[in-house]
Amino acid sequence: MRLAVIAGDGIGPEVVAEGLKVLGGVVPDLETTEYDLGATRWQRTGELLPDSVLDELRGHDAILLGAIGDPGVPPGILERGLLLRLRFELDHHVNLRPAKLYDGVRSPLAEPGPIDMLCVREGTEGPYVGNGGVLRRDTPHEVATEVSLNTAFGVERVVRYAFERATARPRRHLTLIHKTNVLTHAGSLWSRTVEEVGAEFPEVTVAYQHVDAASMFFITDPGRYDVIVTDNLFGDIVTDVAAAVTGGIGLAASGNLDASGTNPGMFEPVHGSAPDIAGQGVADPTATVLSVALLLEHLGRGDQARKVNAAVAFDLSTRDAQRPVRTAEVGDRLAALAGG
Amino acid sequence: MRLAVIAGDGIGPEVVAEGLKVLGGVVPDLETTEYDLGATRWQRTGELLPDSVLDELRGHDAILLGAIGDPGVPPGILERGLLLRLRFELDHHVNLRPAKLYDGVRSPLAEPGPIDMLCVREGTEGPYVGNGGVLRRDTPHEVATEVSLNTAFGVERVVRYAFERATARPRRHLTLIHKTNVLTHAGSLWSRTVEEVGAEFPEVTVAYQHVDAASMFFITDPGRYDVIVTDNLFGDIVTDVAAAVTGGIGLAASGNLDASGTNPGMFEPVHGSAPDIAGQGVADPTATVLSVALLLEHLGRGDQARKVNAAVAFDLSTRDAQRPVRTAEVGDRLAALAGG
Ligand SMILES: CC(C)[C@H](C(=O)O)[C@@H](O)C(=O)O
Ligand SMILES: CC(C)[C@H](C(=O)O)[C@@H](O)C(=O)O
Repeated sequence: MRLAVIAGDGIGPEVVAEGLKVLGGVVPDLETTEYDLGATRWQRTGELLPDSVLDELRGHDAILLGAIGDPGVPPGILERGLLLRLRFELDHHVNLRPAKLYDGVRSPLAEPGPIDMLCVREGTEGPYVGNGGVLRRDTPHEVATEVSLNTAFGVERVVRYAFERATARPRRHLTLIHKTNVLTHAGSLWSRTVEEVGAEFPEVTVAYQHVDAASMFFITDPGRYDVIVTDNLFGDIVTDVAAAVTGGIGLAASGNLDASGTNPGMFEPVHGSAPDIAGQGVADPTATVLSVALLLEHLGRGDQARKVNAAVAFDLSTRDAQRPVRTAEVGDRLAALAGG
Repeated sequence: MRLAVIAGDGIGPEVVAEGLKVLGGVVPDLETTEYDLGATRWQRTGELLPDSVLDELRGHDAILLGAIGDPGVPPGILERGLLLRLRFELDHHVNLRPAKLYDGVRSPLAEPGPIDMLCVREGTEGPYVGNGGVLRRDTPHEVATEVSLNTAFGVERVVRYAFERATARPRRHLTLIHKTNVLTHAGSLWSRTVEEVGAEFPEVTVAYQHVDAASMFFITDPGRYDVIVTDNLFGDIVTDVAAAVTGGIGLAASGNLDASGTNPGMFEPVHGSAPDIAGQGVADPTATVLSVALLLEHLGRGDQARKVNAAVAFDLSTRDAQRPVRTAEVGDRLAALAGG
């Protein structure tokens, strides 16, 4: 397995080190190449993502990313120039975000019940396309626009992926989240696509919810969800709500996939670079390790993925909640459990 | 006080009756005119909001709305043609949504702590402007767009209103919620406006959060928020999260205001028409009564607003959680408490 590693900023290198520890334990033929990208490189050289690096990344089986970001960088620079650029250039139209409440993990909800959902967020369209502008900036007549672009091609492929995932799960349930009553054009395309593709998956039951109502049900009744499919921006928000009710972004994993398999997928914890705790060895690497499991699964290494997931589940269920997390200790335990 | 009443569909008429009971008890000179608008009228006559009705509505001091909607009406018809049309025609640029956890109310959070926030959601811009379209519908080449329009004029006035509210509250704290790292054009306009208007309110401390992070903190640490200002779509979502953690939309009140005072405000519970429980006398009218308090406050009747709010607070803290809600009983109790 040829893996590109972008450790990134802040706690990124710390959690990635543990992710690699676990991955190396289950994949004997692991070859890694490190790429220095992120806030630090931009601040040093002004470079975000050189084309030559992008080309090299394409040659790998997968990419593992730690975290990108620094409060000293103006908003949008690293997002547009690096994180989103990677998603768009590598055609990562599926942004996969499971949200599961593990035994032993405290939810902020009083009665969470069992939670086990898989959010399939679109990754290359919607309001994320960067198609906006500004007129008469810094005057009282300024107008700023943001355009959400949605195509039949783009919606169909992510909806199809979501149905495929739903049909392989015991509950076989899919919820479309959108705002069809206000965003009527995009909403209609999404609804019709779910209906059409759904006809090929008669065994999957389908529900629809407006994003505002769904955000509420994620809190009052998260157990009702199985697979979710949604637009790029709605997905950004509801997956953070889902992460919150299942114990926080410290545990939230994600995969950015080109479902066609043409480009390598990129796997990353949902949390940021957390500069406040960087360098102290106290960041929880679990989200990175769970992202490694998504990576293995995407590469068809289901057995290895199951080992990593089982290691995390066991470790979380037996962790001493009183004891502060030590990054390397968690990684050691997970590597031993998964590789053993 | 000249009040226009749009009882609407489903449980709308039931909860509005109790709202009027309470309002009539504290406002001796109340004159009401009922307007038959909503799903039922549309299904009967095809009419949504005749211009003559809109003109008449303008002549009132305020509008009280119950709920609009019916599962038999295709998405978008009532929203675009009635609810949003009212907001746009009456220039309701401030959508006011308090979220307070009352004593005696069960939050779904295990440790909610005190929650008392005031969301100021923009009401006439953003992705709600209806500026979208579709190309090559029903073909594999379909493209659907939604345009978010944001103007200095529109953002400034709602930001100013939010600062005015923040400066009058004990904590004097304002949080801007947006997604400036992705929606860079609109985000920049919002950020710069908050900075500029904020310079006139040095006593207000200002924070910024991305909408995804905020949606998480609403769950893990809702007590940190005081006043919130945000865009139309983000406000739709985060106010439902806020409602969920403070006991559900059964208690969530809202006001649609033209802060300039030119047009009457419209006050409505956030919940929908709930056709499943309509006609049974079991809908909780509390959100409508809290909306009546917002109405009184907006019309400068602070003493009367305080009475209604105090009645609700007392009633909620002494309600028997085992006893099912009876709409008219709750209204009777609140009217007696507020009018006494
Ligand atoms: C950093 C940002 C561009 C990104 C997004 O909005 O997608 C992040 O919030 C995420 O969810 O991965
Ligand atoms: C019904 C719908 C148009 C409306 C909105 O999206 O604003 C509702 O969700 C609300 O929050 O008042």
